[in-house]
Amino acid sequence: MREKAERIERPHSRELDAILGKPFRVLDDGFIRVVDYMGTDESIVQAARVSYGKGTKQVHEDRGLIRYLMRHHHTTPFEMCEIKLHVRVPMDCWRQWIRHRTANVNEYSTRYSEAIASAQRTPSDAWRQQAKTNRQGSGEFLDSETGEYLSRREKEFQEASREVYEERLSKGVAREQARKDLPLSTYTEAYWKVDLHNLFHFLSLRMDAHAQLEIRSYANIIGNEIVSRWCPHAWEAFVDYRLNAVFLTRLDKEIIAHISQGKLDEAKRIAAENGWLSFGKKGLKRNREREELEAKLGDIGLTVPWKEPQME
Amino acid sequence: MREKAERIERPHSRELDAILGKPFRVLDDGFIRVVDYMGTDESIVQAARVSYGKGTKQVHEDRGLIRYLMRHHHTTPFEMCEIKLHVRVPMDCWRQWIRHRTANVNEYSTRYSEAIASAQRTPSDAWRQQAKTNRQGSGEFLDSETGEYLSRREKEFQEASREVYEERLSKGVAREQARKDLPLSTYTEAYWKVDLHNLFHFLSLRMDAHAQLEIRSYANIIGNEIVSRWCPHAWEAFVDYRLNAVFLTRLDKEIIAHISQGKLDEAKRIAAENGWLSFGKKGLKRNREREELEAKLGDIGLTVPWKEPQME
Amino acid sequence: MREKAERIERPHSRELDAILGKPFRVLDDGFIRVVDYMGTDESIVQAARVSYGKGTKQVHEDRGLIRYLMRHHHTTPFEMCEIKLHVRVPMDCWRQWIRHRTANVNEYSTRYSEAIASAQRTPSDAWRQQAKTNRQGSGEFLDSETGEYLSRREKEFQEASREVYEERLSKGVAREQARKDLPLSTYTEAYWKVDLHNLFHFLSLRMDAHAQLEIRSYANIIGNEIVSRWCPHAWEAFVDYRLNAVFLTRLDKEIIAHISQGKLDEAKRIAAENGWLSFGKKGLKRNREREELEAKLGDIGLTVPWKEPQME
Amino acid sequence: MREKAERIERPHSRELDAILGKPFRVLDDGFIRVVDYMGTDESIVQAARVSYGKGTKQVHEDRGLIRYLMRHHHTTPFEMCEIKLHVRVPMDCWRQWIRHRTANVNEYSTRYSEAIASAQRTPSDAWRQQAKTNRQGSGEFLDSETGEYLSRREKEFQEASREVYEERLSKGVAREQARKDLPLSTYTEAYWKVDLHNLFHFLSLRMDAHAQLEIRSYANIIGNEIVSRWCPHAWEAFVDYRLNAVFLTRLDKEIIAHISQGKLDEAKRIAAENGWLSFGKKGLKRNREREELEAKLGDIGLTVPWKEPQME
Repeated sequence: MREKAERIERPHSRELDAILGKPFRVLDDGFIRVVDYMGTDESIVQAARVSYGKGTKQVHEDRGLIRYLMRHHHTTPFEMCEIKLHVRVPMDCWRQWIRHRTANVNEYSTRYSEAIASAQRTPSDAWRQQAKTNRQGSGEFLDSETGEYLSRREKEFQEASREVYEERLSKGVAREQARKDLPLSTYTEAYWKVDLHNLFHFLSLRMDAHAQLEIRSYANIIGNEIVSRWCPHAWEAFVDYRLNAVFLTRLDKEIIAHISQGKLDEAKRIAAENGWLSFGKKGLKRNREREELEAKLGDIGLTVPWKEPQME
Repeated sequence: MREKAERIERPHSRELDAILGKPFRVLDDGFIRVVDYMGTDESIVQAARVSYGKGTKQVHEDRGLIRYLMRHHHTTPFEMCEIKLHVRVPMDCWRQWIRHRTANVNEYSTRYSEAIASAQRTPSDAWRQQAKTNRQGSGEFLDSETGEYLSRREKEFQEASREVYEERLSKGVAREQARKDLPLSTYTEAYWKVDLHNLFHFLSLRMDAHAQLEIRSYANIIGNEIVSRWCPHAWEAFVDYRLNAVFLTRLDKEIIAHISQGKLDEAKRIAAENGWLSFGKKGLKRNREREELEAKLGDIGLTVPWKEPQME
Repeated sequence: MREKAERIERPHSRELDAILGKPFRVLDDGFIRVVDYMGTDESIVQAARVSYGKGTKQVHEDRGLIRYLMRHHHTTPFEMCEIKLHVRVPMDCWRQWIRHRTANVNEYSTRYSEAIASAQRTPSDAWRQQAKTNRQGSGEFLDSETGEYLSRREKEFQEASREVYEERLSKGVAREQARKDLPLSTYTEAYWKVDLHNLFHFLSLRMDAHAQLEIRSYANIIGNEIVSRWCPHAWEAFVDYRLNAVFLTRLDKEIIAHISQGKLDEAKRIAAENGWLSFGKKGLKRNREREELEAKLGDIGLTVPWKEPQME
Repeated sequence: MREKAERIERPHSRELDAILGKPFRVLDDGFIRVVDYMGTDESIVQAARVSYGKGTKQVHEDRGLIRYLMRHHHTTPFEMCEIKLHVRVPMDCWRQWIRHRTANVNEYSTRYSEAIASAQRTPSDAWRQQAKTNRQGSGEFLDSETGEYLSRREKEFQEASREVYEERLSKGVAREQARKDLPLSTYTEAYWKVDLHNLFHFLSLRMDAHAQLEIRSYANIIGNEIVSRWCPHAWEAFVDYRLNAVFLTRLDKEIIAHISQGKLDEAKRIAAENGWLSFGKKGLKRNREREELEAKLGDIGLTVPWKEPQME
């Protein structure tokens, strides 16, 4: 662990260097580009090893060590990598993005400068219906006729809003006040700098199927196009141990243990005791936690014990 | 420093208890109300004393100790007090507010629920001109005729925007997508919880004359109506040592030292060497740092040495 | 979602009020006591509901909503509760504690005051051996003879260290320098204030079987004695969905799916492909990730496919 | 503000590259070396300009813009630069260092590995007396005879402590427990990563004359040797506007305004009203705030009005 006197160079990722500055398009007029970064997979390993000291130096090879760290939530070594993105995002989407408090941000200011003259447009086939089973989500697309109507109305409205904004400026209203009625679809730009641990947290929430489509589009680019090039081992570990992982709760485990031993009645008894098996007029009532377990059972190839009786 | 075995009660502020839950009105349809809090001036003192140990217990009385802590940027004891506000704010203002990352936030969700049917309106006498000397600020009010025109247009536009939003909902568009063109003037609500140290940081930026009028209106209520009741000693110290304090830079000090000894030429020489005294066709060119010093000189009753020659 | 004009009172927990100020003993001379707090289970619900708006108000009852939030990592409502503890901890343990960066801290200062004249002692039956399977842990206790020897040596050493410290002070050495050789076993005290979300994160790491015994003793008190009284619903949800939950990785799921369908060979093939089934002279080589899966299989009552052949 | 499609490279600082990896010695066996970094003065400017938009692009040149940002506490652009240091520090010093919560840290683990076999030694001429006017500081050096005695005792004690530690290990005690009585002078190592804004905050506290000599030695190296090479404009601005700046409080300003107009009696009256001029048997009693103002008056060449009468 003694320092080395020799000269060193900053670690760099050839793969990421190759796309530095290149904008990835998102939505109709948004983008993401990497502007700067610090550290690579190697830096994660190096940081872990200062913790472990010489003792374990030989034991793990790099990929294995990174996977071990991810699996065991040893998160601090991932904080040693940092990335700075330049993004262009509708304000509505940015409202969600900015809630992640552990990043550094410099956003385009509509006090200093005129608002960017671009608002996100919705193609006629991209209007989504309110989800039926989920209060916060969206589902199927609306039919094309309605879609065309809505897109036309959107265009008119956005044009009107720009007119109002520019009229205010032309009459001498201060930019900080003129902007007050800009639609949330207006694009903004920002530099967004974050460490890899916090970026993974962002991605685990925003690449999730429950995240809104718009921010998910950005998150997918960041994950699949950027992090995968930058720190490929860490990315792979994240995909295996976070993105595609599933949680079993205390109750899940108990019930599964009975199912896997063929004791379906026991499994049902526990579920019933926890209020998961109430029946209404239309059969088994909806219960979120039970439905979540059902999905997990599907994932691991086990029978849902309470489904069979319904089939009779 | 040994613990006391006796039972204790939560410290409370009678003054703050008296207004708990009471909304203070801000702008046309916004408010701030205190929903919960923890700690008082006493808690600041208690925390400081765990640092100091018995040794200094007797020396300071409470008010003096709090003032000493504030003056010397011993900030951690102020973190021992926490407050939770329920606020109703236009989204445009909230965009600035949320940039303060050290608070806890739960905001009204327009994915789960319909957007609040209220947008901030501007009275006809409240339209502000772009500031002349400051790219980001605003200055004088516009004349009443223009004001009336702009307020009429604003009303029409906000009504149109609500129509577009509701039409989308009625056609089955998901709330998360329907909201995309809501104007930034739309009100949102949030619980906002923050410790006193970070609240003071917020106030020092947002009660400042350069802060935008809208967020300043909220900050003034928080400071003058809420913190002043909650922790009166800390508030007084903040006002004396932060809000009304002024910074002298290395150069300011040098120049002032010459002025206060009557060596005006020396003072001018230093200013000139630093590029503060360039002359253009219209006389002395604008220079921000020099103008800042001039304001400070005014504050402390000293002559501006380079102003006199201009008068000739 | 409109504000209510009526007067309110701070929510409080009767159970927690009953132990306010009462020290819970930890180790030989440490303690934890609750000094102040803010919020209860109700505050979590209230914060969640500002996000959900009226829309879902009726749907969930409180306990169910809290459990839903915990299960789905909706963490911000838990940040609305805050607690302040007064703790007395050996410095060695405090070194680990302080690594949790999201808390507010005021620690006893050995610059201002003399160091606390107490160092943590180890009973003769409490000396732990280095763990055999885990580089960072400890295992069995040492025999009583060795234990007695070590405890005697510890006592002598701690007395010598105090002597050195006090001698320095008596010769006029500044406290800030005299303290430089205090042993890490020296007790320190601090106020530690943290929100419930971050406290749960602390507890999930520090109540874990891999956490060092000393800090685990503190964490267990905080969880079992304090949080359980303060926010009983949140605590129960934490126990069910975090403390006793288990993660299945992408690979775990694949292998389990084969096992649960009786395709043991398929399961083995996948494990082998991932390098989990290398054989050395002494049979199956150790592989951390495989061992972790084996533990999970035990938990949910499934056969370990690669164990059987070994038995032949 | 539109993105540029062209390829870019990471900004780098030639001056900093020249010392990358090179250890700067601190204390008897400590060091600091830069291991990685991201961003330069340019990055600060770039971030500021995304806020300002095109509008102000031409107006400021880089140095002026950076100085403006520093003077006006526009701190976010400084967060765009990040640096990673490898440090070797006595644990006592590290206890202060780690209190800065906004950094990323990976520390050498004495659970995984044996403690570093080095403890900070005090040369016989470096033992400092307790400060007389300041409860937390140190003052003059002790005489050489006492110094030699103390250094001899220190050496013996540190050797004894290492013996105790190694004896425990040899008897099979777990590393995590064996370390419990290590002296605070034991060296530890860490990677410490921080953004420039938070580093400046660290430096403003730890380069201060009131900071303990040991941590100040590290801070001085970081500031004078590292930041000055890395971001020279930002460093210069920091020195001018923070390190060498002085605060005038509301009361300071009032009193100075009277002094600078020759109204010494008015100045004295205000000071007296605020309790700054109490007399005891030995004359004017000590008063911290008054003494602070006296120092500021010295700085800017103004008379202390209440000093003169004492001379009579």
